[in-house]
Amino acid sequence: MRGLQLDSLNPALLNVQYAVRGELAIKAEEHREKLKTDDHGLPFGKVISSNIGNPQQKGLDQPPITFNRQVAALLEWPALAELAPNAFPKDVIARAKQLHEEIGSIGAYSHSQGAAMIRRHVADFIAERDGYPSDPNHIFLTGGASAGVSLLINMLISSPKSGILIPIPQYPLYTATLAAFSGVPLPYHLDEESEWATSPRDIEIAIEKARKDGIDVKALVIINPGNPTGALLDEPTMEKVVHLCEQHDIVLLADEVYQSNLHSRHTHPFISFKQVVRQMGSQVPLVSFHSISKGVTGECGRRGGYFECANIGEDVIALMYKMVSVGLCPPLSGQIGVDCMVRPPKPGDESYPLWEKETNETHAVLAARTKIMAERLNKLPGASCVNSPGALYLYPRLELPDRAVEAARQAGKEPDAFYAMQLLDETGICVVPGSGFGQKEGQNHYRLTCLCPGVEEYVGALEKFHLGFMERYGGL
Amino acid sequence: MRGLQLDSLNPALLNVQYAVRGELAIKAEEHREKLKTDDHGLPFGKVISSNIGNPQQKGLDQPPITFNRQVAALLEWPALAELAPNAFPKDVIARAKQLHEEIGSIGAYSHSQGAAMIRRHVADFIAERDGYPSDPNHIFLTGGASAGVSLLINMLISSPKSGILIPIPQYPLYTATLAAFSGVPLPYHLDEESEWATSPRDIEIAIEKARKDGIDVKALVIINPGNPTGALLDEPTMEKVVHLCEQHDIVLLADEVYQSNLHSRHTHPFISFKQVVRQMGSQVPLVSFHSISKGVTGECGRRGGYFECANIGEDVIALMYKMVSVGLCPPLSGQIGVDCMVRPPKPGDESYPLWEKETNETHAVLAARTKIMAERLNKLPGASCVNSPGALYLYPRLELPDRAVEAARQAGKEPDAFYAMQLLDETGICVVPGSGFGQKEGQNHYRLTCLCPGVEEYVGALEKFHLGFMERYGGL
Repeated sequence: MRGLQLDSLNPALLNVQYAVRGELAIKAEEHREKLKTDDHGLPFGKVISSNIGNPQQKGLDQPPITFNRQVAALLEWPALAELAPNAFPKDVIARAKQLHEEIGSIGAYSHSQGAAMIRRHVADFIAERDGYPSDPNHIFLTGGASAGVSLLINMLISSPKSGILIPIPQYPLYTATLAAFSGVPLPYHLDEESEWATSPRDIEIAIEKARKDGIDVKALVIINPGNPTGALLDEPTMEKVVHLCEQHDIVLLADEVYQSNLHSRHTHPFISFKQVVRQMGSQVPLVSFHSISKGVTGECGRRGGYFECANIGEDVIALMYKMVSVGLCPPLSGQIGVDCMVRPPKPGDESYPLWEKETNETHAVLAARTKIMAERLNKLPGASCVNSPGALYLYPRLELPDRAVEAARQAGKEPDAFYAMQLLDETGICVVPGSGFGQKEGQNHYRLTCLCPGVEEYVGALEKFHLGFMERYGGL
Repeated sequence: MRGLQLDSLNPALLNVQYAVRGELAIKAEEHREKLKTDDHGLPFGKVISSNIGNPQQKGLDQPPITFNRQVAALLEWPALAELAPNAFPKDVIARAKQLHEEIGSIGAYSHSQGAAMIRRHVADFIAERDGYPSDPNHIFLTGGASAGVSLLINMLISSPKSGILIPIPQYPLYTATLAAFSGVPLPYHLDEESEWATSPRDIEIAIEKARKDGIDVKALVIINPGNPTGALLDEPTMEKVVHLCEQHDIVLLADEVYQSNLHSRHTHPFISFKQVVRQMGSQVPLVSFHSISKGVTGECGRRGGYFECANIGEDVIALMYKMVSVGLCPPLSGQIGVDCMVRPPKPGDESYPLWEKETNETHAVLAARTKIMAERLNKLPGASCVNSPGALYLYPRLELPDRAVEAARQAGKEPDAFYAMQLLDETGICVVPGSGFGQKEGQNHYRLTCLCPGVEEYVGALEKFHLGFMERYGGL
């Protein structure tokens, strides 16, 4: 029999590319397995997965926030509140009891949009953040932000001529999902010379070009703060973006999952697109995504997040509900994580001092590490790096020697992928080459997370490798 | 501006129907909200959501298995093992420690196929169940079985001429997902007169008809034990089904999520398609789905499950890996749930006696309830019901009076949907009309779960309503 063959499967899926977990990540896993053997022969002792913003992964071990985990433990086994009452702060017990009374068992399906009470809390959080009301019926809890993005792209791509504007560099979820649903990615470039600024004029040029090519431009993706760039949009730019969407009748998809990851958040706070849209009195349809995987919670494994719809009709909301109902409901563990994120302990609560200490420490460590890493990367010959104001990443640019570019060509790889593979093989550090995020022709970058245990060991290894690589290919 | 309008969205999604959470379920939610007010004026005191196999939902409250929840609580907050050591059995502490050491934080992304150790345990479980080895690299942990089914249908539908054979009646996940990916559902009817038996000859007729219609038949879905029917396939039928798949070169999708829900499991045990395929030495590509949402665990809210691939090439496995990697990983809470399901406590373990008691009770209650409900439904005029040997449901057939059929027509509803809406409005019991699962022209059924707190109150209300309905429309 013929069996199940690649060429008989959905051809769109063959075009999907997702570099964050691609060839390099697979090789990193192989190294990790090999390290468990005695005679592994590898020139490093551990693999550091800097390819993915996964703060709590083994070896990085960003501690989870104790409050969140205490609430979760009590919801897993409510009898603990009686069996070990002294193990839990009083506000944790009260919070868990309230959630349990409203939701019931976390082993039960919830409402397909997520538990009603948690959606009300998300709406309260948004209203307080923005100064404008939020409707719990227009909020969908999701299994991480990715699930929401996938739903929206699935809905918006109505024909192979449907296109969605995406920033370059971008988080490859967007191109991967567009490929899966046979939509057209419409790139607009962020400006590295201006700290990866978003240019409304460049977006407009991309729209005009797409229309000339016969593409129906459905939506604009903005990642703010940026991934992989960390860049934060300013309010005038955001207003221009909203105007553009109005003028060209396109939906605004605001990926705001790094909204709490801002290293100067007291002087340069996050402003949501929801706030800007409301301030302007705009009718532009907006979907904003948030997640518990990033921020200081870093709870990737729970798969929790939400999206909020603004200026979207009830018939479209009903379609969204129908689609999520086929998947039954988002994981309750993620939903509980969302509740803890939007309702942290308040001053006066028993848990507050520890919560404050833990979140402050995580913020401080990440900011310091990002700064020192950018500084040191900038000192390397052939490397330059915008000092990222947010998110979890740096996205250094490489000026690689001609001989390295030629060697990469002969190996059938993009030059930055060639560089990244050698980095992995020599140091155990796994990064994602810029070719995975998109970049201008002839440029080379890589994305690395600013999550690592010892910055000195980590950056030291990066520096040593870089200098060796440059020397090897005649770049010094 | 035009904004976001239904007619600009992916037209395939408009055709998706998922009755389990459709009009009736939405109305049930409205009743539930109304019941919270003092002057609700409804003729019942609570809503019973018999539309969905959700054992732990509020009001049904099938207790979760304590062992599973203790392990989960310790993984949420590992410090508990020190803080409250006496609250946990020793084997629970050891199990949680082992999982924690291998996986690390459950707030971290795992491997996109699921944690390697848990996949090894699933493979051990399968090997022990079937007597044939299982490869952990061909197992994908998923967020419930639905996520796996959706991935497979997405992969298999390569054009709008691709079709998949589905049983009628079926669980509407299949038609919903096929509609979303623009595939063709190819119905084959189960035989109600023979206790909902699967007829290989009827499947073959459906294949021949589809081919005549120019449809590329990609796969055959078998739900065993059946949903909504509960029927269990016998081994000779399974062998014929495998032969059919070989002969017609189609993939076998075995939905086996109710494999532990068999009321006579000691005399009529579950046999997996994996076992039959291996016994026959068949090369038919097989994907088998399992879940923690059903069985005696009933952990729907965790979103945990897995699928196993057999006779599927490494290139197709790599494509599956790529696709799941875009969604990052299944929820760790569900993965831990899978580990507990495939590695329950063993005789001699401290947790074993309680685990045994809890699982036996849940099995016994479900079997007894199913039996008594079927008996009493069969005594009603105009109702008949196969005594389901498994799953969580009954699927009674209704012979409705002509006047009821006419009244339904005038209300613009299918007769069984008309019946079900009145049942909900009079008793608060929410069921799913047979039109949501598929049935022969002119027939009427409904699916109800055998999950309920007091069987007397529940069946009593069903009986009273039914007799009143029949009398109202001249059927008595």
